[in-house]
Amino acid sequence: MENIYASIITIGDELLIGQVSDTNSAWIAQQLNKIGIALNNRISVGDDAPEIRKALDFGSKNSQVVLITGGLGPTNDDITKNVLCEYFQGKMIVNQASLENVKRLFEKVYKKPVSEVNLKQAEVPDVCEVIQNQRGSAPGMVFKKDDSIFISMPGVPYEMQGIMEEVIPMLQKKFHVPAIIHKTILTSGIGESALAEEIKDFEDKLPKEIRLAYLPNYGMVRLRLSTSGFDKSKTENAIKNQFTALKELVKEFMVADEDLTMQQVVGKLLLENNNTISTAESCTGGAIASLITSVAGSSAYFKGSVVSYSNEIKQELLGVKKETLDAYGAVSEQTAREMLSGILKKMKTDFGIAVTGIMGPGGGSEEKPVGTVYVAVGNKEDQAVQKFKQRFTREKNIEVTSVMALNLMRKFLVNGD
Amino acid sequence: MENIYASIITIGDELLIGQVSDTNSAWIAQQLNKIGIALNNRISVGDDAPEIRKALDFGSKNSQVVLITGGLGPTNDDITKNVLCEYFQGKMIVNQASLENVKRLFEKVYKKPVSEVNLKQAEVPDVCEVIQNQRGSAPGMVFKKDDSIFISMPGVPYEMQGIMEEVIPMLQKKFHVPAIIHKTILTSGIGESALAEEIKDFEDKLPKEIRLAYLPNYGMVRLRLSTSGFDKSKTENAIKNQFTALKELVKEFMVADEDLTMQQVVGKLLLENNNTISTAESCTGGAIASLITSVAGSSAYFKGSVVSYSNEIKQELLGVKKETLDAYGAVSEQTAREMLSGILKKMKTDFGIAVTGIMGPGGGSEEKPVGTVYVAVGNKEDQAVQKFKQRFTREKNIEVTSVMALNLMRKFLVNGD
Repeated sequence: MENIYASIITIGDELLIGQVSDTNSAWIAQQLNKIGIALNNRISVGDDAPEIRKALDFGSKNSQVVLITGGLGPTNDDITKNVLCEYFQGKMIVNQASLENVKRLFEKVYKKPVSEVNLKQAEVPDVCEVIQNQRGSAPGMVFKKDDSIFISMPGVPYEMQGIMEEVIPMLQKKFHVPAIIHKTILTSGIGESALAEEIKDFEDKLPKEIRLAYLPNYGMVRLRLSTSGFDKSKTENAIKNQFTALKELVKEFMVADEDLTMQQVVGKLLLENNNTISTAESCTGGAIASLITSVAGSSAYFKGSVVSYSNEIKQELLGVKKETLDAYGAVSEQTAREMLSGILKKMKTDFGIAVTGIMGPGGGSEEKPVGTVYVAVGNKEDQAVQKFKQRFTREKNIEVTSVMALNLMRKFLVNGD
Repeated sequence: MENIYASIITIGDELLIGQVSDTNSAWIAQQLNKIGIALNNRISVGDDAPEIRKALDFGSKNSQVVLITGGLGPTNDDITKNVLCEYFQGKMIVNQASLENVKRLFEKVYKKPVSEVNLKQAEVPDVCEVIQNQRGSAPGMVFKKDDSIFISMPGVPYEMQGIMEEVIPMLQKKFHVPAIIHKTILTSGIGESALAEEIKDFEDKLPKEIRLAYLPNYGMVRLRLSTSGFDKSKTENAIKNQFTALKELVKEFMVADEDLTMQQVVGKLLLENNNTISTAESCTGGAIASLITSVAGSSAYFKGSVVSYSNEIKQELLGVKKETLDAYGAVSEQTAREMLSGILKKMKTDFGIAVTGIMGPGGGSEEKPVGTVYVAVGNKEDQAVQKFKQRFTREKNIEVTSVMALNLMRKFLVNGD
């Protein structure tokens, strides 16, 4: 029994001019990882026949699985299907099920007449096996060559993900892959290297079939134990004992013993105590509310937010005093505190988060440079305020600030400070 | 004089398990694109010697420039420098300038004693030219082999970007590169294939040195013309004529004749008329405000938002009538209209966007299934309301709804309906 390796090939000119980020690769890599298939490499090429052929050769060199996305649209710049047809020495035929799918989509979903160009989407090389695309018109295609299996999917993430729902069980059936088990502990308040010192003995004694990974992110470090084995219950037992030992070692810093996002952790804490929350956001512009409400069921604890981008709104809706703004400025501890007590009153929630700062690129001064942020969290009785200095791009500053604000709220919920 | 092509190789195990997105590639691609160097491909491999060598072979096959990031850290899992040393048949020597840089960093910036492991960062293969890294301890390295130039840089984006400031002028000096010109038209209200039918004749007659790409996203399609040439003004003229012709052909659907996001288009329209905007968001939970404020300078037209996740907040902060909620429900055209007039009053802005709906997975009913959304946009005098039916995951439903709401606002700003 040997390990199974995969390559991912993403196709599209837009990937090569930095216009869009290749999110498909990371998503696919995660899915493969879960079922015990490791990645050898990821390749992105343009809508260019020689480069696509080179990538197919390269990708299949040491990989038994090659996953391909993109270049399957109905327009002329999309050439993946034709290149694959030629590469696997097939000829184009109409796939009946795909034809019906295209007709169904246009009639029932898009409610538009179907054109000649759209019908072409139902053509596939006769040497492939088709996976129907319930979410769009370009079918998935499975090819075999030598010892590798090639799977071509559309580049639209939602469509690709739908097809992957069929690809994953197909790969599990075809390759007898071991069960991979991950167990994650979320820690906060300790850095990666200090944590490593703390659990050095544990790590040294860890059986070699269990791997430990440190995954630092936004002031948290995830500790992940991973192992794989063909006997699932035996594998689970082996990792369970180590997981229990590790939890005991890091209990002081443990945020959760499962793999959750910060907004999920905060949501869980609120739900457990039947508490509610609201946010008052200036520089994050709604990003914290957006993270909180990205969790399904968040309406049970989230009542709302006031995004107060202008000083006028800070005064009128949150009751920040004009004198405070004049004396300390909008970006100050005092303003953050008043925003917080304002939102707690307005929304009548048990807890609140307030944020004010300068995300850049403009708006900074010598006294308050770009990246200066004040976060206040708390309830009516007690508040905690922290100043942060972010040093990234505007987009990243907003993202980091939002997660750090949630982390501050989490700490307050747990420790009351 | 021929075109110059590049490959990007990013190295690191974390890139292959989907844990982090490869943002370096997109950034580097953009920089190269600006100076007329086109990308042949992008490759990501793990910290694995055979895979790195394969990638170096692959990347340099048709590319004169190979840019490499990652794997230059001081710990044992980072092997890029040793693999490069062997690949280019060099031997390791201490680079004096790099040594002084490491000592300076530890003394002045990190304020920590410098260790044996850290000093190793100053060792480089004797066959490379060094580019000093002002922002970290791992130096940049330039190698030459056959007709290709290889540049190795650290994976930390901030450090890589610092080294690229020296790489770009070096490449411009070494290669006489052609100008690459892109011209983009944003369209809305027409699908990719219908658009293709519409401009079929144009596309068929397009000179082969000008490429046309269709980039669909959220009910918009970007049309991009690209070309390159050594005589910049001649090249610009050639594409300008085609661009003018294309704009004329699609004018009915044209949103902008430059490459903007929906929130940038809306922001531009508001700025041009010195108008302000606010949002009242239920199901989007602040995502629209978050998109609007992702644009630098948005404080000139965005005043704020009320995220009213609970009915209570809809009534108290936005003045939605209890009778309306009782009679029609929170997810209704009537509630959307009242949310809109409420936010216009509260924020005193010229225009407003209000959204209420059910994003799933729970909360749906037979009458109002998951995905039902009402969007109201307008000003005090006039409002437009549209009902949408989204059919994706919660996350995607929120994203799509947000962009569609901005698009509705855009249409209202342009046409007044």
